[in-house]
Amino acid sequence: MKFDLLSTDTGSKARAGTITTDHGKIETPIFMPVGTVASVKGVHQRELKEDINPDIILGNTYHLYLRPQTEILKKAGGLHKFMNWDRNILTDSGGYQVYSLSARRKIKEEGVKFKSHIDGSYHVFTPENVMEIQRTIGADIIMAFDECTPYPCDYKYAKRSMHMTHRWLDRCVNHLQKVDPLYGFDQTLFPIVQGSTYKDLRKQSAEYIASVGAEGNAIGGLSVGEPAEEMYAMTEVVTEILPEDKPRYLMGVGTPINILENIALGVDMFDCVMPTRNARNGMLFTAHGTINIKNKKWEDDFSPLDEMGTTFVDKDYSKAYVRHLFSVNELLGKQIATIHNLGFYMWLVREARKHILAGDFARWKNMMVKQMDKRL
Amino acid sequence: MKFDLLSTDTGSKARAGTITTDHGKIETPIFMPVGTVASVKGVHQRELKEDINPDIILGNTYHLYLRPQTEILKKAGGLHKFMNWDRNILTDSGGYQVYSLSARRKIKEEGVKFKSHIDGSYHVFTPENVMEIQRTIGADIIMAFDECTPYPCDYKYAKRSMHMTHRWLDRCVNHLQKVDPLYGFDQTLFPIVQGSTYKDLRKQSAEYIASVGAEGNAIGGLSVGEPAEEMYAMTEVVTEILPEDKPRYLMGVGTPINILENIALGVDMFDCVMPTRNARNGMLFTAHGTINIKNKKWEDDFSPLDEMGTTFVDKDYSKAYVRHLFSVNELLGKQIATIHNLGFYMWLVREARKHILAGDFARWKNMMVKQMDKRL
Ligand SMILES: [Zn+2]
Ligand SMILES: [Zn+2]
Repeated sequence: MKFDLLSTDTGSKARAGTITTDHGKIETPIFMPVGTVASVKGVHQRELKEDINPDIILGNTYHLYLRPQTEILKKAGGLHKFMNWDRNILTDSGGYQVYSLSARRKIKEEGVKFKSHIDGSYHVFTPENVMEIQRTIGADIIMAFDECTPYPCDYKYAKRSMHMTHRWLDRCVNHLQKVDPLYGFDQTLFPIVQGSTYKDLRKQSAEYIASVGAEGNAIGGLSVGEPAEEMYAMTEVVTEILPEDKPRYLMGVGTPINILENIALGVDMFDCVMPTRNARNGMLFTAHGTINIKNKKWEDDFSPLDEMGTTFVDKDYSKAYVRHLFSVNELLGKQIATIHNLGFYMWLVREARKHILAGDFARWKNMMVKQMDKRL
Repeated sequence: MKFDLLSTDTGSKARAGTITTDHGKIETPIFMPVGTVASVKGVHQRELKEDINPDIILGNTYHLYLRPQTEILKKAGGLHKFMNWDRNILTDSGGYQVYSLSARRKIKEEGVKFKSHIDGSYHVFTPENVMEIQRTIGADIIMAFDECTPYPCDYKYAKRSMHMTHRWLDRCVNHLQKVDPLYGFDQTLFPIVQGSTYKDLRKQSAEYIASVGAEGNAIGGLSVGEPAEEMYAMTEVVTEILPEDKPRYLMGVGTPINILENIALGVDMFDCVMPTRNARNGMLFTAHGTINIKNKKWEDDFSPLDEMGTTFVDKDYSKAYVRHLFSVNELLGKQIATIHNLGFYMWLVREARKHILAGDFARWKNMMVKQMDKRL
């Protein structure tokens, strides 16, 4: 993997760059649509590629491990071939999902024992086997196995957990060297900064992560319920320390406004289920605020779904039509809203990149943040 | 509406023709995908047009009347504009749906009082208001209001019901003349032959329907649970009588085999929820038989979904991948299966047309019926 930092904004810490992997270029800042179990819910791969057009998508190790299971992915020749996606893929490490299981998992130094949410069967994730699982899935960027602490988290727990995440990182790095990639292309490991909402812990963790010298670095444990201001404060501490010449990935973030604010703080990569999950509930993001398309007010609004939208759904369908599809619970409503939201997220990060390269990102960002903070 | 009969098969009564309406040409024999509430479930209009490519689709008056309601469709400028579909649309009359409500409807000479399946509210359909509703929906081909009898149906009831359907037809024809089309294009009324599974009633009904001199004629009350042989026997009686120079539409039929057998008996138009509904349950139709894609046997079959398939899904996705999507209940599984099945149905009727024009339909039909009668 290669990262070229092309430009840094004058009015903020926003950066434009290009990551190059064996599956092509990723123009940063980038948003990565979430394809949990080898599908971005409701979107054909053809639409994903031609209409939404992200350079990279995300898969979830926890879900893929349970179904279709690594054995099937291995026989398929990896996730790219299995799902017919020839651009970049990033897989998380399962840490976040395991944390979400709460009552159904036990975290120890060795690893995490957990109960499948599907059939209640017991499984163990360790730094070592998660590296092997991610080798088998075969994503281009793979994540270190970490503990994602909840919010709020008491200082003592956060500190102990952070050090364990650091020790787990060492085990990930060591073990990955012993297991070769399976499908003839490189895989790059990103370590993850933890430390909850404590500045001193975040600083300490960022320094440890930076010292590892990975090709890219991630910030985890945020967007777990803390106020946006606390999130931004943590991002700021961390991006001050993480190396400038490596991409920075803020995991699980967030709203369009969260994304712009974090780009301004020097983050390059994002993922979040929000555009897809909210779409399935009828919530649309636009440049002028959010729309609840289920609302009766759209019943006879025959204007295009989003006049400024960049995907075919924005022109092909009216607000009244999509409102109708939600009111009769038609699959197509979810499909349309998903493509719209992902198209909007992609537009937003592409536009951010243009403004960074043009040198007027900060002004544009402030205008957009104001403009998007409305309910239509 | 205009119908040009281009060719009749030598070995059967199969016909190839062209219907021309204000929304373009319909090459017959044709299968009409069902878009119950202004959406072919799980399929974007763009995919419907470019990938599945039918000349006409079907909407359901009963469902559209309840939601989005005629007032919204009128404000939208009719169903074509509301759903963004600029080719032909046919609407049924609601008769079949009202029949399906069984305990929740009362049939009288005046019309049918029924309880909405959504909110339990009471409504009345009469031949007159159903004509007005269909004027407001604005389909190119609209159906007479009829009673669709169940199977089995005793002779006395079937006879009485048939005569009421005939009287209702007269009321439809009379009333339609008093209500102008709303959107600047013509609408053509198709009357419906009833008579349950009684040859003498079917004959009598077909003669009455033929005497009306409509531009196209339909056969209703079949595919309601009777054995295929009884269906074919009724179709045969009716197509002997219905005028040759008018298209014949067999409502609600059927499996790929049913369609080919009825084409051989002189039917030109079909609709059925089977390809879409079965798709959502993981059942795929192919030229070599049906596939239950949920079956574990496809788990590691990475061959294309259908090597002979004509739509993008057949090449883009493997059997193992689609099997996985169904096993994790991903929307995309239903979307893929729906496009595959509709693509297959369209291929089947297009291919039938080619063989009718080439003069070797009967032989091809017999080969296909044998070949498709398998579970893979
Ligand atoms: Zn440490
Ligand atoms: Zn009669």
